[in-house]
Amino acid sequence: MNRYAAPQKEIRFVLEDLLGFDAHYSGLPSGVSLDLVEAVVEGASRFSERELAPLRSTGDREGCRLLDGSVIAPTGFKEAYRKYAEDGWPSLNGHAAFGGQGLPPSVGTIVAEIMSGANLAWAMYPGLSQGSIAVIARHGSSAQKAEYLAKLISGEWTGTMCLTEPHAGSDLGLLSTKAVPNADGSYRIEGTKIFISAGDHDLAENIVHLVLARVPGAPRGTRGISLFIVPKYLNGRRNNVLCTSLEDKMGIHAASTCTLSFDGARGFLVGAENAGLRCMFTMMNSARLGVGVQSVGLMEAGYQDSLRYAQERRQMRSLAGPSDPNHPADRIIMHADVRRMLLTQRAFVEGSRALIYFLAQLLDVSNDSSEAGQQAGRLLDLMTPIAKGFVTEIGFESVNLALQVFGGHGYIRENGMEQLVRDARITMLYEGTTQIQALDLLGRKVVASRSDGLSELLMLLRREAAVSEFPQLGVYAELWQDLSSRVGELSVENLHEIGAASVDYLMFAGYVSLAYFWSRMARAAEQNDEFSRGKRATAEFYFKRLMPRAEAHRQAIFAGAETLMRIQPAEFAESRG
Amino acid sequence: MNRYAAPQKEIRFVLEDLLGFDAHYSGLPSGVSLDLVEAVVEGASRFSERELAPLRSTGDREGCRLLDGSVIAPTGFKEAYRKYAEDGWPSLNGHAAFGGQGLPPSVGTIVAEIMSGANLAWAMYPGLSQGSIAVIARHGSSAQKAEYLAKLISGEWTGTMCLTEPHAGSDLGLLSTKAVPNADGSYRIEGTKIFISAGDHDLAENIVHLVLARVPGAPRGTRGISLFIVPKYLNGRRNNVLCTSLEDKMGIHAASTCTLSFDGARGFLVGAENAGLRCMFTMMNSARLGVGVQSVGLMEAGYQDSLRYAQERRQMRSLAGPSDPNHPADRIIMHADVRRMLLTQRAFVEGSRALIYFLAQLLDVSNDSSEAGQQAGRLLDLMTPIAKGFVTEIGFESVNLALQVFGGHGYIRENGMEQLVRDARITMLYEGTTQIQALDLLGRKVVASRSDGLSELLMLLRREAAVSEFPQLGVYAELWQDLSSRVGELSVENLHEIGAASVDYLMFAGYVSLAYFWSRMARAAEQNDEFSRGKRATAEFYFKRLMPRAEAHRQAIFAGAETLMRIQPAEFAESRG
Repeated sequence: MNRYAAPQKEIRFVLEDLLGFDAHYSGLPSGVSLDLVEAVVEGASRFSERELAPLRSTGDREGCRLLDGSVIAPTGFKEAYRKYAEDGWPSLNGHAAFGGQGLPPSVGTIVAEIMSGANLAWAMYPGLSQGSIAVIARHGSSAQKAEYLAKLISGEWTGTMCLTEPHAGSDLGLLSTKAVPNADGSYRIEGTKIFISAGDHDLAENIVHLVLARVPGAPRGTRGISLFIVPKYLNGRRNNVLCTSLEDKMGIHAASTCTLSFDGARGFLVGAENAGLRCMFTMMNSARLGVGVQSVGLMEAGYQDSLRYAQERRQMRSLAGPSDPNHPADRIIMHADVRRMLLTQRAFVEGSRALIYFLAQLLDVSNDSSEAGQQAGRLLDLMTPIAKGFVTEIGFESVNLALQVFGGHGYIRENGMEQLVRDARITMLYEGTTQIQALDLLGRKVVASRSDGLSELLMLLRREAAVSEFPQLGVYAELWQDLSSRVGELSVENLHEIGAASVDYLMFAGYVSLAYFWSRMARAAEQNDEFSRGKRATAEFYFKRLMPRAEAHRQAIFAGAETLMRIQPAEFAESRG
Repeated sequence: MNRYAAPQKEIRFVLEDLLGFDAHYSGLPSGVSLDLVEAVVEGASRFSERELAPLRSTGDREGCRLLDGSVIAPTGFKEAYRKYAEDGWPSLNGHAAFGGQGLPPSVGTIVAEIMSGANLAWAMYPGLSQGSIAVIARHGSSAQKAEYLAKLISGEWTGTMCLTEPHAGSDLGLLSTKAVPNADGSYRIEGTKIFISAGDHDLAENIVHLVLARVPGAPRGTRGISLFIVPKYLNGRRNNVLCTSLEDKMGIHAASTCTLSFDGARGFLVGAENAGLRCMFTMMNSARLGVGVQSVGLMEAGYQDSLRYAQERRQMRSLAGPSDPNHPADRIIMHADVRRMLLTQRAFVEGSRALIYFLAQLLDVSNDSSEAGQQAGRLLDLMTPIAKGFVTEIGFESVNLALQVFGGHGYIRENGMEQLVRDARITMLYEGTTQIQALDLLGRKVVASRSDGLSELLMLLRREAAVSEFPQLGVYAELWQDLSSRVGELSVENLHEIGAASVDYLMFAGYVSLAYFWSRMARAAEQNDEFSRGKRATAEFYFKRLMPRAEAHRQAIFAGAETLMRIQPAEFAESRG
């Protein structure tokens, strides 16, 4: 059933017609051409369709195995990784000084969408390396860069991020892994990390763990956390870090999720002591954007399969009379609610792609110290939790609609839809849950930062509203402004107002953000052909049928913290167990 | 993690304080006392907590096995079924003439909630028998009743419903299984049925399949379908019906979902030829209500576990300052959005329980030929698709919120939350998808039947609104009325308007129906204790934070069929593969 085809035409539309990537790329210091990038997209499509998509369901069934502290990935994964490395894919974004191709981050984002759509679990192995590369490139010493970057960029080695511990998930301040200095300047790492994606595997010859830990006497909480490089192999000898168990999970079975035991492992400090969390957070925007991208890939896969099914499967007559009188039943795409389910998926996946590619464009320039670079950074900071939190929430709805189009057949493993649902469920949890994204957006990016990024975004919305065929857009921009001020004012008296509003605020912000991109897409789809007509019809569908949800979220926020906080814990529990 | 405790106090509240089951039961011809029913609930709770709940996750891991055409259920299932039968649970609702206890159907509904909450997959084996009993009791000949009812009611045998075929799911008119008369009055059944729940297993000594098939010369479509009894064993010898494969599914792994091959099996006509679908549909209301009940059971299980986790897990400080200064972090129930997730679950599960027990009460009297019985039947007909379609949709949201409260730990199998999500996903699909329920509600029960049931329901809503502390209730009742008229009028010109509105209409109707019960529950919870205060706070939460969704669904309906039907199939497909 899974016949994933990378949506190259959709991607070209976003790059060329919607977001002006041509001028964007040629304006970058690195001066890459859009033609080159589109050739990369073509290559990634071919690789993903041929090598990765066929391993999606076999990898899910087989899962990973743990053998003597080492993990073996499912059949075919290692071979696919070898081709991936041979073809130079790991080095796309890497610095030229270390063998990288030096392409801007947005290219990696596009490639990640395609690879995740073909096979999310596989894409996680190389995906984690990108964060390690970014952290070491930014915060590592020259010696560390020399030692690790070339191997990571070539794909010979892969990387991990070791943050979570059993009692420290969202709350990293609670982590207790210890790092005790050795005489030679290295550190002795002791502790247990859980939920480490690609924490061990047999795809690459070495794994570079980036580990958060506390040095002796470090302050409590998040200000006492340091960052260490802990390689699996050190000068050819095994370091004292072992995978002690593999998580048995709802989905992404083919991706190893490891408990790593650091039992006096040798580690090397990155940056200064107690500055580890800040170092790790430099890659947080791109890591979170990366999860939003995964969600787009999954939505696309679900949309394609359910669309194909709706075009082939015949059940019942169209309510308005037979559309295929020569057959005993009509294709289910002729039923109005099947179309609602398809169009909802389409509106979500294409809207989310536009949003995320827009942010990837900002990412390309956000390290620039110019005013434009600064502004890009603010907008990126503001919108990243939307791209992660909101996009994964609608992504889960979207793949569930794909399953629903299949009816009872969607529940059967061999049709592949239920795997998409199981795989998608992780995206609302890792790299910060939806709740964490919502607090980041409303608490940190809107209320605490006095909404600089928001003002700039609202300016974009108002400018678009002035030329849009959807007059609601301007109204929503003003509502967003008012809502933000209102929650900000209420929070002065009661900080619970931020938590109480947070997820509904995130969802409101997400729907309005997508409205902005759908308005732009409707204008950009200006031809009189099937592609453009379909695009404009989807824009209209989005505004008429999905945007009313934004208002429901706004109304829920008006209920205030009182509806949540007045109730006593005992009143929750009284009647149970 | 799964420490399911049957919510007996909640159930008593609904029976005693909310729905007046005392007077209801004593007013029935059978004259059962509420005390007796509550003793049954207590017994079912004990049995489910001790025997069924411990098999929930082990059954999920082990799944079913197929050996030489026969299915073996997971370890412990057969033993639990033996106790279940020994204790007399299968006979709860059966006719006294055949060894049944003759309790009203509502008692079976309550027991089904408890057993589904403890272990949905297990509960499906005996659950399917109830439909078979109802059909044979109503449409079988005296000889058939004598032959089958006592064995089914004692639990020695179980039953199935064999409707679906590979190309006939929602569209039963397409089914092609054949039934050719034999000289002795029996029929020779040839064909393949799929997705047959409990289609084979080793819990009982015989299985009575109720099979839809076509006799020679039968009219095409649904008017040419006949109903047959096809026992697995006939006079001690195996009949020609084999399980040829087991579905590998997203969830309910421990429930066998069979492909049954009827290869010249002997079958016996029930009722008249070509009247089979009508016979089968006599048990449709209770079967669909049964799925709504399963959803309530799953929501309850998820709510209990996530509530317990939220009371124990500590992460981060409450935004308004430390609530437990002596610990390094606060319990997550002190975070506003965790409360939103808990209260949403609570509002859904308790509201749905009230709705479904209300319908079960109607079911008790709906076969009565009095005017009250007729009216109960109309209300039941109207509200059953809500109890199935809407309750399973919010049920899926609810168990996903339970998982989300656990954060990343919710994605791990051993914590049990992800199983609830996988298990719950089937409820939106079987016994008619959400889409089928929505068309049944809007197309058949509202537009085509001129809304008799709806008028009666709206009368109840208006009467409640007059005494409610939630003035919105009356407003929603009028909106429901207007919305129904409006869609009815539009559909005169374009029947697609019904399909286009259907699912949003179902959701609107569901939210307003739950509002009715939450208004009543707030009034019924009149004590000044934790139980009553928690109940009233949840009612307020429901009206303020969840009811705005109803308006979003209403607005979506106003978009009309045009937003869905104008777009051409090629415009959907143009940019993909």
